[in-house]
This record gives sequence, structure tokens and C-alpha cells, in this order.
Amino acid sequence: MRALHWDGTVARVTDRPDPSPNADQAILRVHRAGICNTDLELVRGYMNFRGILGHELVGVVEHGPAEWIGRRAVAEINFACGRCPSCAAGLGRHCPRRQVMGILDADGAMAERVAVPIANLHAVPDSVDDDAAVFVEPLAAAFEILEQVQIEPKQSCVVLGDGKLGLLVAQVLAHAGAEVLGVGKHLDKLAILARRDIRTCLLDDWNRAPAPLVVEATGSSAGLTAAIASVRPRGTLILKSTVATPSAVDLSPLVIHEITVVGSRCGPFEPALRALAAGAIDVSSLIFERVTLRDAAHGLQLAAQTGVLKVLVDCA
Amino acid sequence: MRALHWDGTVARVTDRPDPSPNADQAILRVHRAGICNTDLELVRGYMNFRGILGHELVGVVEHGPAEWIGRRAVAEINFACGRCPSCAAGLGRHCPRRQVMGILDADGAMAERVAVPIANLHAVPDSVDDDAAVFVEPLAAAFEILEQVQIEPKQSCVVLGDGKLGLLVAQVLAHAGAEVLGVGKHLDKLAILARRDIRTCLLDDWNRAPAPLVVEATGSSAGLTAAIASVRPRGTLILKSTVATPSAVDLSPLVIHEITVVGSRCGPFEPALRALAAGAIDVSSLIFERVTLRDAAHGLQLAAQTGVLKVLVDCA
Repeated sequence: MRALHWDGTVARVTDRPDPSPNADQAILRVHRAGICNTDLELVRGYMNFRGILGHELVGVVEHGPAEWIGRRAVAEINFACGRCPSCAAGLGRHCPRRQVMGILDADGAMAERVAVPIANLHAVPDSVDDDAAVFVEPLAAAFEILEQVQIEPKQSCVVLGDGKLGLLVAQVLAHAGAEVLGVGKHLDKLAILARRDIRTCLLDDWNRAPAPLVVEATGSSAGLTAAIASVRPRGTLILKSTVATPSAVDLSPLVIHEITVVGSRCGPFEPALRALAAGAIDVSSLIFERVTLRDAAHGLQLAAQTGVLKVLVDCA
Repeated sequence: MRALHWDGTVARVTDRPDPSPNADQAILRVHRAGICNTDLELVRGYMNFRGILGHELVGVVEHGPAEWIGRRAVAEINFACGRCPSCAAGLGRHCPRRQVMGILDADGAMAERVAVPIANLHAVPDSVDDDAAVFVEPLAAAFEILEQVQIEPKQSCVVLGDGKLGLLVAQVLAHAGAEVLGVGKHLDKLAILARRDIRTCLLDDWNRAPAPLVVEATGSSAGLTAAIASVRPRGTLILKSTVATPSAVDLSPLVIHEITVVGSRCGPFEPALRALAAGAIDVSSLIFERVTLRDAAHGLQLAAQTGVLKVLVDCA
């Protein structure tokens, strides 16, 4: 089959063997895959990954239990062992022996087919089309915040960063009843939030009034420093993005102002699917470009450019 | 009066004017003051402080409301304005207009006398002698953790650092029912914990098994990195010490393992006083040396040496 493969030096579309599933796995024929910033980090060396890229997808079950065959599905990306204390505690997403689709020891979804554990499948309702369903994984990561912190009605919060993740996080928090201020550098991206009646502000115009809840979704050291400075004493800072290269960030305000920092990664698929089915989150405005699987390497380069939001790969 | 004064260049004992209290303040005649690592940071430039050093003290009320005169007391160090939204929310320790005794815009306690808000006084019971009472402020900082996170019975936790603060934190957590492992570099300091039936381990011998709760009390970047690495997924890291100089610490494990970091500073005096009255915390073993107020500058130098625990200044 054709697939976007990363060999540690170059990412290119090439012929790869069809996935050979084990007894607990299904095979999805991939309709769409999405390019995530993590993919861009992987080809810069993150996780030392080698294999087929891609962990955002929607497809059709081609092989697996009879009740799944032919159903449209999305798939959670952490392949837990199911037998360790973490899994027993319901923390399969943190299983120390996990594989992660397209990130750690498992081939990804920018391919004609991908193998995933049957337990990781979620059926996609007809009301959620492929263009929306491919956003379930990153949207679930935004919903993860609601599993970690309590959002009170009218909770004031700032989302720093107007990239793909920031735009999803701002919408999820607003959907949960928070009064969100989205702060970013791009008027066109912030406009996506403004159309959903979310307050927005350019970084240069931001008054930096301390907020009880701040989400860091810039992925930069400068963003992290700004985020720390804008949390009010005893407030909470959600870290949604890893800063790729460690740099000297002054953490003493965390102690002085007794700030709580909550690291936040993958999230629950169910609320993301429900929100998309209800039309509560605008993901279509995040689609910047579509490429075919044949042009996926170009799509990767495109996604790395400043100002580009989601690049989708049509794998059908 | 005599006082240990820091002028931005040199810390020396010199004649200073007696404190002139406002209507809301009392004057304490100081019995004992303690030298804290923060004092050492102040004379390295932290907070750009100028004035009389010292924020750990016990003394006798010499001037103030009639019911306080002659009573032995300790004093909270954050002088809140009492009128702002933070104060109204019960967060006087985070009042943005606060003064902080011996740290920010207020003279400290390494002096014959010190002025403090009457509201900040706590009477010291007869069962708590001066040598114990002078530890109320740092012990309260250790008790702050119990205000911020729930300690479950037999909660497994690691305290990294066997300095003054680490030794107090380990004892407070054990007192609250946690199963504490104290990790440090000094057998003689760890022995203070071992005598209280707290498990200890030299840093080099530590197996670094991930723990659900880790307290960073080393004040070093290396300690912070080790602390982050030893928190299990979805676990909690308490930051008790500021790392003076920002250095490149890789924070990506916070996101990957969804760790919660809780910055923790000053704490409540009442439980600290109760614990001392009950003899639940060994502070006397932390006393390394006593100096007179005349020799306080020497005491400061002594306290800066590796391996030295608490240096007390006899101000009477």
C-alpha cells in the first residue's frame, strides 16, 4: 500500500507492506488523515520515531469483528497493554508499555490502511462527515482539559495561541460555559473564534490582566513565559503544548503566586464526537488545504509554514 | 536599636531607628530570629530588597493593644492591605499591595524590635519554647502543602532535598499520614527523619520509582529535573523552592505524563503552632548554630555554607 513514511532522514510516500493485525486489532481503510504539529516535531527528531506518520484519521473498518465491518470509525491513538497497573487504574493513555499510532512503535494513518486495537475504535455517526471526524483526535485533546479542571459557569479564562489546538481549546472552553479570551498573532485565525462569539485579542493589544485560568497553546518558550505571567495568584495554567527545545523559563512565579500547572495531552473521544454531532465546534474553518496521499510529503511541508492551519490528507 | 541591615552591597549589624508603628501595628521585642535560605538569596539580589533582614521570629509584644502587651508571639510575614479583591477573597498572602517582612518594603526581624500588623500576631503557648516558636514560619510553609493537595492515608510521596525546608516538609507529610521517602545528599540530615520513623535514602541510592506525589525542596535545576522525572503519570509535583537562576529545564514530561505542578509558598500558622505544641515535629535537631545579634552577619555567612541547617540569631 502507499503510505507517508519517515525513515529518520526523509518523509516520503512509498510502498509499504499492508498492516498485519493481531487478534485484538482491526484494519481501517483510511478516508482522511490530518497533519498535526506533532508530526512536524517527529520529522525534527522528536520521539526518535521511524515509520508511517499520522494519528488523526477517519476511515472504514475493513477487517475485524463482524459488527464493525463497513462502519465508519475514528480511533484512539494510545494502544495500551491492558494488563498493567496503569491500565487497571483506567489510565490506559498513560500505559508505560503503550504504543502510540504514528508516534511510538506503531505505524500511523497517512496510508491506505492502518491497524488499530478494536478497543480503540469509536463509531462515527452519520451526522459527522469525514472532514469533521478527522478532527476528533485533536478535539478530544482539547476536551481533556474538562476532565482535569473544573470549569465554573462564566469562568474567565485566557487561551494563548491561535494555532489549531488553541482554536479548538478556546471553543471547547466556551462550549463548557467559560468566558474565553483568545489571544494570538493572526487576525484571520482569531476571526474563527470571533464568529463563535468568543472574545479575541491580538497579542500586542492584550492588557495581560491576570486570569484565574490560562491555557498555553503556543508551543514556544516566549508563550510559556507570557502564560505564567498572566495567571493570577492561586490560578491554574494548562500546558497543552510541549516546548520542543528546553529554554530558560523563570519558574519562580509559580511558587510566589502558588500557581497550579496542569499538563494536558490526549483526551476522551466521546465528548468530542458529541460536540461535532451537535455542531457545537467549528472545525471546517480550520481546514487550510487538502492534499492527496500521493502529495502527503508536500502537505507536511505546507503544514510547517507560518499561518497554515489544518492540512488534510485524502487517503481514499 | 541594633539590627542586621542589608544596603544592597553589604549586610552588617548597625544602629537603625526604632520602628515607628502605625495604628494597626504592634511592636515586638525580638527574642530569636531564624536565618532562612531566602535571606541568602536576598543578599544575592533577590527582590532587590533593602532594609533589615529576617522574617522568622519569636518575641514579646512591647507596644500595641493592651491585651497583647507582654505576650509571647510569632507573626505572619505578609502584610496585606485588607481592602483589595485578593484580601476580600481571603488571599491576603497574595495581596498585590502587600509588604513582606524582611523581604519586600518592610523591615525584618533580625533586630531588637520589629513592627508587624496586629492582625498578623499569633500568641505562642507556654508549651512551645522560643527555640521551637522561631520555626513556626518555615513550618507553616510546609503545612501549606496540606492546604493545597489532599493527602490520602498511606499516600506514597517523595520529598527531594534534605535542607531545612525538606526536613520540615517530610515531617509534616508523615504527620498527616503519608508514607514519605526523604531523599537527600547528607546522611546526618536524613538521620533526623529516620529518628521520626520516616524512610530515607541517599540520592545516589534512590531507585527513582515514580511516585504519585513528589515535593521539590532542593532549590536546584538538577533537583527540579529529577523531581519531574520521578512523578508518575497524572501525579502531582509540589514546588516548594524557587530556583534562583532560570535554567533550561525540559518541561515536556509535564504534558506527556499529564503531571500537575503546584507552586507552594507561605502557609497557615495555626497548624504549625499546634504541631509544635504537640511535639509532633522535631525542629530542635535542625538547629545548627546560635549567634548573638552582634554576630548576625557572621551567622548569615555560616548559613550559606553547605551542610549547615538552621542558624538562630539571639536578639534579646
